[in-house]
Amino acid sequence: MGDDLRSLGRDGDLRAIRAMLSAMRDVPAVVDELERQDATTRAVAFRSLPKDLAVAVFEDFDPSLQSDLITELREDAGDLILALDPDDRAGVLGELPASVVRRLLTGLDPDERAKTTALLGYPPGSVGRRMTPNVVTLPAGLSVGQALERVRALEPGAETIYTLAVVDPTRHLLGVVSLRRLMITSPTTDLSEITREPIQVSATDGQEEASRVVRDHGAVAVPVVDDENRMLGLFTVDDAMRVLEHEESEDIARTGGAEPLSKPYLATSVFGLVRSRIMWLLILVVAAMLTVNVLDYFEDTLTEVVSLALFVPFLIGTGGNAGAQAATTVVRAMAVGDAQLRDLGRVVGKEVVTGMLLGIGLGCVGFVAASIIVGTSVATVVALALVIVCTLATTAGSLTPMLARSAGVDPAVVSAPFITTFVDASGLIVYFLIARAVLGV
Amino acid sequence: MGDDLRSLGRDGDLRAIRAMLSAMRDVPAVVDELERQDATTRAVAFRSLPKDLAVAVFEDFDPSLQSDLITELREDAGDLILALDPDDRAGVLGELPASVVRRLLTGLDPDERAKTTALLGYPPGSVGRRMTPNVVTLPAGLSVGQALERVRALEPGAETIYTLAVVDPTRHLLGVVSLRRLMITSPTTDLSEITREPIQVSATDGQEEASRVVRDHGAVAVPVVDDENRMLGLFTVDDAMRVLEHEESEDIARTGGAEPLSKPYLATSVFGLVRSRIMWLLILVVAAMLTVNVLDYFEDTLTEVVSLALFVPFLIGTGGNAGAQAATTVVRAMAVGDAQLRDLGRVVGKEVVTGMLLGIGLGCVGFVAASIIVGTSVATVVALALVIVCTLATTAGSLTPMLARSAGVDPAVVSAPFITTFVDASGLIVYFLIARAVLGV
Repeated sequence: MGDDLRSLGRDGDLRAIRAMLSAMRDVPAVVDELERQDATTRAVAFRSLPKDLAVAVFEDFDPSLQSDLITELREDAGDLILALDPDDRAGVLGELPASVVRRLLTGLDPDERAKTTALLGYPPGSVGRRMTPNVVTLPAGLSVGQALERVRALEPGAETIYTLAVVDPTRHLLGVVSLRRLMITSPTTDLSEITREPIQVSATDGQEEASRVVRDHGAVAVPVVDDENRMLGLFTVDDAMRVLEHEESEDIARTGGAEPLSKPYLATSVFGLVRSRIMWLLILVVAAMLTVNVLDYFEDTLTEVVSLALFVPFLIGTGGNAGAQAATTVVRAMAVGDAQLRDLGRVVGKEVVTGMLLGIGLGCVGFVAASIIVGTSVATVVALALVIVCTLATTAGSLTPMLARSAGVDPAVVSAPFITTFVDASGLIVYFLIARAVLGV
Repeated sequence: MGDDLRSLGRDGDLRAIRAMLSAMRDVPAVVDELERQDATTRAVAFRSLPKDLAVAVFEDFDPSLQSDLITELREDAGDLILALDPDDRAGVLGELPASVVRRLLTGLDPDERAKTTALLGYPPGSVGRRMTPNVVTLPAGLSVGQALERVRALEPGAETIYTLAVVDPTRHLLGVVSLRRLMITSPTTDLSEITREPIQVSATDGQEEASRVVRDHGAVAVPVVDDENRMLGLFTVDDAMRVLEHEESEDIARTGGAEPLSKPYLATSVFGLVRSRIMWLLILVVAAMLTVNVLDYFEDTLTEVVSLALFVPFLIGTGGNAGAQAATTVVRAMAVGDAQLRDLGRVVGKEVVTGMLLGIGLGCVGFVAASIIVGTSVATVVALALVIVCTLATTAGSLTPMLARSAGVDPAVVSAPFITTFVDASGLIVYFLIARAVLGV
């Protein structure tokens, strides 16, 4: 179907595109289909959508694609921007050049403009950017019945009404009450009796951190406050889920030694893919030159016992795999909060022992295999080297991401590929030193 | 604090443990602290918790730790099991031996037992296991006012009331209505006027798939139906978030060439870590023996030009990195639905071109570096090999996970480490063939 749509887009047959897209079951299906297209087809197809569907689809797009579309749809962009909630709007505007942002903001009414610029005032990546300011707050002192009246009156302008913030006259957050609780309580009860202490986040908190709070508490939404505990908005579970998905994609890309893509895969050009990877590859290539120098240094040993060379890729490949296992496990444990900086000693201790045990197991296998091919003396060198290389690999694999975190660097960035490169170079040194000792060359 | 708690646990100072844990802000903090302990400390500390807190903490535990605890707390386990919602209960029981399950089920009242065994009847990993059967259904034909009455009456037994299912007399799902909509509509309106078509999942659908439906629609809960469209329960957003977190952990572990851990990292023993990794390492070791054979085959060439050996780790390391980048990108794109099987041609096409461009860039860098160390003739071999190896690597990196998916295997399993091993062996063949051609040896 993707290819059909692309050829329809090229032919500009708007009626056929509109028919095809409107036959799709629901908004996510249309979003999915459009995200698979190149930029031109996407714009053509998007223009052909009925107005209501277009707004709903636009809301669900990845922010990078939203800003692409706004650039494409110059004249119609104002309507789309107007249709978004303030938090989503801030997300799109954050990706656009300042001149375009100014033009678009001018098209908003003063109230919407104020809300949007307020959100844009928070640092990128903070909850402030992702919260919704369209919430229902309840002044303390109301009865449950009065509170329900207020919820009904303010509902049309609110993004969610399932979590209600109770505030004092200067908007300081006193607590929260769920719509559920409000519903089942007698209308004459005082609101304060069912108000509970809030789980809250600060507007300058990171989005990932706040999303984990939402998930760990199974919350539908959490209040966002400023430094003085004044209620600013709500951070909702649907936004939290998106943030977590985005962060996971970022971690996974970095685990593979690449920068995260800014757009969905199929919407990314070949040059976008090259750009996301070339920098890390170049850094790794420079690091890999270390292995050339190590081998150059041991060239005499190598010339004397050429069969040592046979096991070089085997040895460093296995070390790299053991290191990658340790690194991905530890990076993940830190990401989900299972391991923290204060656990450094326990984590590295576990990994040293694990690496040693794995090395002994693999060393036995390696010894048998190498004995058959090159005899027991080189096989002894290979087996001993495997034990040390595996231990080195799991140690580096656990230590590096934890040290990165303590230095404020994303642990995923320095994981597998970096550790592999380090293990390659140090593993070769170990291998040749053992070879010299055992073989007496 | 973790270490303090451990030493307190060893000393069995229950009062101090209780004081320390109750000083913690909230349930997730206690859960977090306990998940970092070894099994014995965890059981001692858990016993010391006040009843209410214990139940709340138990509900939030990882299912594997829940079943551990139940085994430890034989006599008290019945109360904990009773306190859980049926879906969480099915999750724990699914991890316990059948004899223990029978004993625990006997302790439940007939109604709870029936609900729990019904959930246990769905296949592991299906939404049926994770849905809550404790929902409020609204018979079609009610007015909005009557519906609200019914919600108020049934609320105490329901897990959520924000999504309400409208059903016919034989429980066929007709639609859903949100509590929000119900709240703001005039009580005399007919319920059918505000009932909308449901986004629903089937009880036998996979949990991951259903969780993505919840996330993509920004839903608070979706109805779960049987084959005949009869309403069975609701799948809620908090469960969806947990499922997604679990699946991501699994994907990440497999990307690193390890089996996912069944418990939080710090609660996993060294033997648990070894077990999760040794099998894949052994498989990879056997595969890596290929490289030994390739080098053995080309030993004459190697003996004649020993400086070729210097670049072996450099070449295959770089190829491995390029392959890992492609593999993690494509595995992630498939996981989030950005790339599907029908896109095979587009994806592999993109990666072939990307690999070639990366290879040309790195080949230039490699040529300059190698020229300095060993002269231009070997440098030419290295540069040409880099171009081909990078192309091979990104091609294999994209093709393998997609073929795995089409064969019904988790793409993450066959990603980076497997591709690296394949690229190692084929890269060496390319390298030596080019060397023979260029150097005439």
